[in-house]
Amino acid sequence: MDKSVIKESWRKHLHEVIFEADTPAGKGFDIALLIAILLSILIVVLESVNELRADYLGLMRTLEWTFTILFTIEYILRIISAGKPWRYIFSFYGLVDFFSILPTYLSLILTGSQYLLVVRGLRLLRIFRILKLSRYLGEAEVLKKALYASAAKITVFLGAVFALTLIIGSVMYLIEGPTNGFTSIPKSIYWAIVTLTTVGYGDIAPQTTVGQTLAAAVMIMGYGIIAVPTGIVSVELSRAEGDYKDNNGVRRCPSCHAAGHKERAKYCYNCGSPLSE
Amino acid sequence: MDKSVIKESWRKHLHEVIFEADTPAGKGFDIALLIAILLSILIVVLESVNELRADYLGLMRTLEWTFTILFTIEYILRIISAGKPWRYIFSFYGLVDFFSILPTYLSLILTGSQYLLVVRGLRLLRIFRILKLSRYLGEAEVLKKALYASAAKITVFLGAVFALTLIIGSVMYLIEGPTNGFTSIPKSIYWAIVTLTTVGYGDIAPQTTVGQTLAAAVMIMGYGIIAVPTGIVSVELSRAEGDYKDNNGVRRCPSCHAAGHKERAKYCYNCGSPLSE
Amino acid sequence: MDKSVIKESWRKHLHEVIFEADTPAGKGFDIALLIAILLSILIVVLESVNELRADYLGLMRTLEWTFTILFTIEYILRIISAGKPWRYIFSFYGLVDFFSILPTYLSLILTGSQYLLVVRGLRLLRIFRILKLSRYLGEAEVLKKALYASAAKITVFLGAVFALTLIIGSVMYLIEGPTNGFTSIPKSIYWAIVTLTTVGYGDIAPQTTVGQTLAAAVMIMGYGIIAVPTGIVSVELSRAEGDYKDNNGVRRCPSCHAAGHKERAKYCYNCGSPLSE
Amino acid sequence: MDKSVIKESWRKHLHEVIFEADTPAGKGFDIALLIAILLSILIVVLESVNELRADYLGLMRTLEWTFTILFTIEYILRIISAGKPWRYIFSFYGLVDFFSILPTYLSLILTGSQYLLVVRGLRLLRIFRILKLSRYLGEAEVLKKALYASAAKITVFLGAVFALTLIIGSVMYLIEGPTNGFTSIPKSIYWAIVTLTTVGYGDIAPQTTVGQTLAAAVMIMGYGIIAVPTGIVSVELSRAEGDYKDNNGVRRCPSCHAAGHKERAKYCYNCGSPLSE
Repeated sequence: MDKSVIKESWRKHLHEVIFEADTPAGKGFDIALLIAILLSILIVVLESVNELRADYLGLMRTLEWTFTILFTIEYILRIISAGKPWRYIFSFYGLVDFFSILPTYLSLILTGSQYLLVVRGLRLLRIFRILKLSRYLGEAEVLKKALYASAAKITVFLGAVFALTLIIGSVMYLIEGPTNGFTSIPKSIYWAIVTLTTVGYGDIAPQTTVGQTLAAAVMIMGYGIIAVPTGIVSVELSRAEGDYKDNNGVRRCPSCHAAGHKERAKYCYNCGSPLSE
Repeated sequence: MDKSVIKESWRKHLHEVIFEADTPAGKGFDIALLIAILLSILIVVLESVNELRADYLGLMRTLEWTFTILFTIEYILRIISAGKPWRYIFSFYGLVDFFSILPTYLSLILTGSQYLLVVRGLRLLRIFRILKLSRYLGEAEVLKKALYASAAKITVFLGAVFALTLIIGSVMYLIEGPTNGFTSIPKSIYWAIVTLTTVGYGDIAPQTTVGQTLAAAVMIMGYGIIAVPTGIVSVELSRAEGDYKDNNGVRRCPSCHAAGHKERAKYCYNCGSPLSE
Repeated sequence: MDKSVIKESWRKHLHEVIFEADTPAGKGFDIALLIAILLSILIVVLESVNELRADYLGLMRTLEWTFTILFTIEYILRIISAGKPWRYIFSFYGLVDFFSILPTYLSLILTGSQYLLVVRGLRLLRIFRILKLSRYLGEAEVLKKALYASAAKITVFLGAVFALTLIIGSVMYLIEGPTNGFTSIPKSIYWAIVTLTTVGYGDIAPQTTVGQTLAAAVMIMGYGIIAVPTGIVSVELSRAEGDYKDNNGVRRCPSCHAAGHKERAKYCYNCGSPLSE
Repeated sequence: MDKSVIKESWRKHLHEVIFEADTPAGKGFDIALLIAILLSILIVVLESVNELRADYLGLMRTLEWTFTILFTIEYILRIISAGKPWRYIFSFYGLVDFFSILPTYLSLILTGSQYLLVVRGLRLLRIFRILKLSRYLGEAEVLKKALYASAAKITVFLGAVFALTLIIGSVMYLIEGPTNGFTSIPKSIYWAIVTLTTVGYGDIAPQTTVGQTLAAAVMIMGYGIIAVPTGIVSVELSRAEGDYKDNNGVRRCPSCHAAGHKERAKYCYNCGSPLSE
């Protein structure tokens, strides 16, 4: 056998293990990667806790470098085994994979104390490794479809909500004024959003009777209009599920194989031949 | 060509640019207006921040007058190009356009310090310029229809919610009393609304055991009845979408008149005769 | 004409005015009553505000007695004009009407300072006059039907939610303990309800890491299970609307007048005769 | 009659009373057990209130032992009367029944003060007696079915929500930093969950302008995506109800086999032939 053929078959096998999940090897690789991602994120999170950093800094650094090297190997193998390397490198997952390993290497170069803040920010970028997990979200097709379909309506709704909070915030700034904590319109808008979305921190709260009356009206409004996005998504989800069911439908036409016939249909909607019961 | 005809054609062209969005010029005008509205609102908002006002007062005033003059020109052009000027002036958009430019001019006339509060209020009126944006909401037909249809039911629901908060507030005023922050029934009602809508500021909170038990009941109630407006809007949205679909492209079989064909259908599912495209 | 016949016709006319809303007199009576109820409630509410009570005590007492006498006359007229007086008196509305006037009269009898608290409680009972408004809720049929239908499922859901808060509260009491504000299990349950229903006062909040982790889990749980009552009501509302539409249906059978045929029906489901298109 | 036969019939009768609810004796047993469970839980809850424990310790201990002995008898009777004792013992209900009585007995053995914390934890385990109530939840079939069906989608959704809070928390930790209360990433994630789920304690709140802007975005996001689980459950509930209806009483026409007849229908809507009852 030719050398290049062997290499080709070796690349093909690698591609199977890394990019596909049907074979046992591919499945094992996926699970190992999943655990590595979750563990490496856990380290980033725990590193920010002062008490833990003081005690376990050495261990954390070691683990961090271990995971970075593992992810680097994964990145290189993906480039090698991909059919079109450049296409992978500039794809969404390729960029996520690249920026997952970048920060650790950069911390080697930027060692002066003047870069401390930059490095601290970069370290946190590692948290975006969680986006590597989105590869495993393949099952959420119906959900994604419904969300795409309702995106336009929800954008209009959120725009209207924002315009509403702008007006409410301005009016509240006039009513309560800086003496009661509403020091500027942006702060008033922040309060309006906190109230309308029923979050209600309580760090800023109206003090005057008129202000509290308006606040009460805003709350009831927020309580009422939360129904709108919910209704939108419900309707779209219901339709997306229907379409999904249509495409996995019960009967197929015996002559043209079209699927998705109405339950009561007697004739194929596509070719007009009679359907079997 | 006659002079009046030229003028007429000039007015017609202007009407196209300003009121319609189909031609490139009309589209360009719309986008420029959109950006001007958003920028002018941003200035109103930022002007309320003390630190920024101190530093950039001159710039803000200049920009404010620039936008006011632009909106004034727009207003005059709209009056000139409108088929029936008075009808435009007293329409919703005509009034919004008028009150968008009024406050800045009034600030010239009312210069005495005794009018300071009035002027401050008027300045904020400029925030309602955001209503000029509602011209661009044409796509939200289905949403609007569903909201109109559910308005009656949601009003009944909100009325019932208000009656509920009135009773809860009064009972709570009796239980907790002024010593625990429930100084009057209006304040108790305010608390009841804050709690029932799950906002929960925490500026007033029950202290006694009986009060906390009632509060817990109110919360669970609020958690349960939020389902009602959501259900109403879901059902209406679902129907509005259905109606929209019915009135736009539902085909009937030319031989048996059966309706409800699939979008892709070429033959009637009921009698098998071919459907017209 | 006989005297008793005159009296009978007078009673019948009175019955029309008071109990029915179809005639102009009946409609006028309804609107006057509506305004009187709202005003009398406004007085109860405002009376609880200390500043207002100090200044307008005389006016408030006068108005209170005016409305009480008006409601007393209404009550007596309802008894006289009702077909079966006792049935009205012990009906829901009869009792509401009676307890709406009782507190003011009792305040005359109980004058000793030892009854002060009792009287204060009784005064507040007048707030339940708002229940007199439920007479005007006739339009909310579909809403009421959907709520009755979903009551059983929502009860099971709320029972499960309460059991959940019981367990969460107990575990949290063990984790946080009295030093962090979780002084007893009832208080812990109160916290669990405040958190699960997303109210979030912030008067009690977990301080330990374990406690905050559990709290985060509870919040996400609460955010997820709010979907359950919403889904229940949506489905029931959708069905109630369908039934309502069925009973106000498009076509009626030409021979047996049955309504509510399926859209595609060719024969009456009740008598089997052919339906017209 | 044989002795063993008598014993067998006695066991059978016992099985009927304990495990079935159709006979009057079985129903009485069920109600008595229900009340005992609720009362015993009430005691656990009230025991944690310091003031009540001081005054009624003796009474509480007596009642506790009474209920423990009652539940022990119930447990023994269930083992005796069960067809396959070991299967019952290791079933979910068997384990719940066992752990409901264990803590009280253990408190006799672990008397040294060094076990105080263990005993205190064990006492609280008794709160899980509420799980004994799940036996009475048989009616919630449709609800349970819909929840099982939507579990997969809700898990994906909650996973995405958690990833979102991880990223938001990390970014917020970078923006606000330890000086504004965001002392570590876990704490920042806790804040993100509190905000996204619209709970809003207010114990940690952003102080900087950038932080508040991000917080506002998170709130609006949380307000929007609460629609997703609601939509999922609505659709599943609607389907579960439909399936339930399909499997219970949908009739088909005996001559043309059309389905979907109205409940009241006597004749097929499609071919007019009479339907069987």
